[in-house]
Amino acid sequence: MPRVTVTRRLRFNAAHRVHNPALSDEENAAIFGKCNNPNWHGHNYILDVSVEGDIDERTGYVLDLSALKQLVERQIVDKVDHRNFNLDVDFMRGVIPTSENIIIAFWRLLVDRVSPARLTRLVLWETENNYVEYTGG
Amino acid sequence: MPRVTVTRRLRFNAAHRVHNPALSDEENAAIFGKCNNPNWHGHNYILDVSVEGDIDERTGYVLDLSALKQLVERQIVDKVDHRNFNLDVDFMRGVIPTSENIIIAFWRLLVDRVSPARLTRLVLWETENNYVEYTGG
Amino acid sequence: MPRVTVTRRLRFNAAHRVHNPALSDEENAAIFGKCNNPNWHGHNYILDVSVEGDIDERTGYVLDLSALKQLVERQIVDKVDHRNFNLDVDFMRGVIPTSENIIIAFWRLLVDRVSPARLTRLVLWETENNYVEYTGG
Amino acid sequence: MPRVTVTRRLRFNAAHRVHNPALSDEENAAIFGKCNNPNWHGHNYILDVSVEGDIDERTGYVLDLSALKQLVERQIVDKVDHRNFNLDVDFMRGVIPTSENIIIAFWRLLVDRVSPARLTRLVLWETENNYVEYTGG
Amino acid sequence: MPRVTVTRRLRFNAAHRVHNPALSDEENAAIFGKCNNPNWHGHNYILDVSVEGDIDERTGYVLDLSALKQLVERQIVDKVDHRNFNLDVDFMRGVIPTSENIIIAFWRLLVDRVSPARLTRLVLWETENNYVEYTGG
Amino acid sequence: MPRVTVTRRLRFNAAHRVHNPALSDEENAAIFGKCNNPNWHGHNYILDVSVEGDIDERTGYVLDLSALKQLVERQIVDKVDHRNFNLDVDFMRGVIPTSENIIIAFWRLLVDRVSPARLTRLVLWETENNYVEYTGG
Repeated sequence: MPRVTVTRRLRFNAAHRVHNPALSDEENAAIFGKCNNPNWHGHNYILDVSVEGDIDERTGYVLDLSALKQLVERQIVDKVDHRNFNLDVDFMRGVIPTSENIIIAFWRLLVDRVSPARLTRLVLWETENNYVEYTGG
Repeated sequence: MPRVTVTRRLRFNAAHRVHNPALSDEENAAIFGKCNNPNWHGHNYILDVSVEGDIDERTGYVLDLSALKQLVERQIVDKVDHRNFNLDVDFMRGVIPTSENIIIAFWRLLVDRVSPARLTRLVLWETENNYVEYTGG
Repeated sequence: MPRVTVTRRLRFNAAHRVHNPALSDEENAAIFGKCNNPNWHGHNYILDVSVEGDIDERTGYVLDLSALKQLVERQIVDKVDHRNFNLDVDFMRGVIPTSENIIIAFWRLLVDRVSPARLTRLVLWETENNYVEYTGG
Repeated sequence: MPRVTVTRRLRFNAAHRVHNPALSDEENAAIFGKCNNPNWHGHNYILDVSVEGDIDERTGYVLDLSALKQLVERQIVDKVDHRNFNLDVDFMRGVIPTSENIIIAFWRLLVDRVSPARLTRLVLWETENNYVEYTGG
Repeated sequence: MPRVTVTRRLRFNAAHRVHNPALSDEENAAIFGKCNNPNWHGHNYILDVSVEGDIDERTGYVLDLSALKQLVERQIVDKVDHRNFNLDVDFMRGVIPTSENIIIAFWRLLVDRVSPARLTRLVLWETENNYVEYTGG
Repeated sequence: MPRVTVTRRLRFNAAHRVHNPALSDEENAAIFGKCNNPNWHGHNYILDVSVEGDIDERTGYVLDLSALKQLVERQIVDKVDHRNFNLDVDFMRGVIPTSENIIIAFWRLLVDRVSPARLTRLVLWETENNYVEYTGG
């Protein structure tokens, strides 16, 4: 049975400040530069959610992409779109909202919810010039 | 000898209907929603064909991308571009034309024809928000 | 009072056949080539709807883009998305579904509904390499 | 002498809140919805600056695009990139930071500084699905 | 009769050096910077050719975009693709190959050949961040 | 400790000629076609540099992307941007400047310089339709 990976892309807009409260203001400014602006800045994020699985003979789908879209909207997009990662997002509490930490948090929200497919990759674009990816390792 | 992956992107426009003839009309409508429209709908598909191999010292190429392009045009694009996946495409007969099933069929048409390189990945974009990939597993 | 143009982009997928029933099959094939395939083909269309107006001091908007989006969805996208322009779309009856004719029909559906702003431009992309635009002239 | 329009695209990331302090919180929420989030949200903005002029025979340029880029960086990007439009940007004081109002403010900062070329159009993308343009009228 | 604008996008790759032979090497280096590299550099150019006209009732087209594509390939792309604007292109002889001068030359090659439509706009992208446009004025 | 891959995209414009000096002119023309033009052609290259590593708890970063950007600029972009791969680039001496050979050379310039992260993938786009990738194997 061939195993195929299917990906759904979703988008959201959010504000954040890259800031470690355990460090002094001077250290934060030195490490994070303009990303440490106390008044926040923001991005149009792009998230690619990839799951792998067998093709269901009855549907020809690995899984229904509308269902995957709704899952990601409910678990992630509804909680972060037009929000502030530092102030508004429960699952980011106590974590510096870098793309690296965001993607790990997103993974945890999805990994047990895509069965019988298997979550295999998340990609998160922060700008047109940088993105992070996580495969669960 | 370093092994490099080279990719050629091709594009085609096609119509399809996501429909399982073994199911009732009601079941089809319930499972596939608007993708089950009996009068078809269509997409601008994007196909990325990736092959891996050693760099040929005489050419500096893994393989000639013009030759790869021509192969994919002859094997795939000429048969699906401006066609209907359900009605016009021999190699899709009896298969629900989801992206998952399309990419498996494409793989079979290419896998034995790219030697001495090795076909390692196909990616098929159906819309700007979803794509499938297959690596032969 | 400065006048600004605001644009909302929407997307839909549809099938069509470029065919003039007043001509013979041979003439249709000669004029329209592969776009005349009797079994249809399709596209991921992109539509940019532009309206111009004064900035409302109370909102800072020319008009609420969510309202514009909903208008275009109700007037256009809901009628054409995952549909066949030749068979499913009332407002295209009797018209060859080229992008030129489609954009004129879209214009008529929107032009009287964006007040107090003014509809100034529609752009319709059929593929990544061709688009049409109409400004009401 | 032919007159050509040349455009330089620049990008910046900023936070904002669409909010009219003259209105009640309930009115703001009703009008602006999720864009009114008190904790801000943000975007990757894209700005296209277009100027028109004669081609200088000595250079073949309408104007030096590096100079135009530096002008826009100094006048605009340095003041808004990784900033908050409501809190950090002097030239937006007292104005609701919608794209419409932002583009008017940008115009005023550039219009007298591109001579002997003439500023003819600004386009500002807020997301991949909406943009505003202003031509000085 | 509604008048619609239709656009065909084409692409080509070329080398050039921005250099005015009437100036000294020092002046050239000062004015053009890295674009003056004597060993050339190059770009993936994107050209949008727009023509306006009445919709032909028989075809639903302003003009056949395949015919427009072939015209632009024959008149322009075949002469500049994988070529050097300074050395290989007859119609650029004696002209500094900036995008401004290139677009004027392209216009002259097309303006009398799109009848009964009317050439109304050329846009030439040199990089993802700059483009020029010409409307014949 | 989760391991994340972070990618920085950079861009440069360069000229090249695909040519093997060990072959005759006729052989070169037959093998490389228009890419063998003796007067060069060029591209807007896009380079994605991916590194993998643990997330640093102090910064929330795998590594500082500004530092990665500066490294790639210093090691690669400053040496190839607005240059000729055949004539101007020391590290390409004696190598046919295909994308395959370029990416191997880029890898060697970066692989020992991204510690404590690990270089895991380079992707180099030559046009919008072809790219190569290398993972060190």
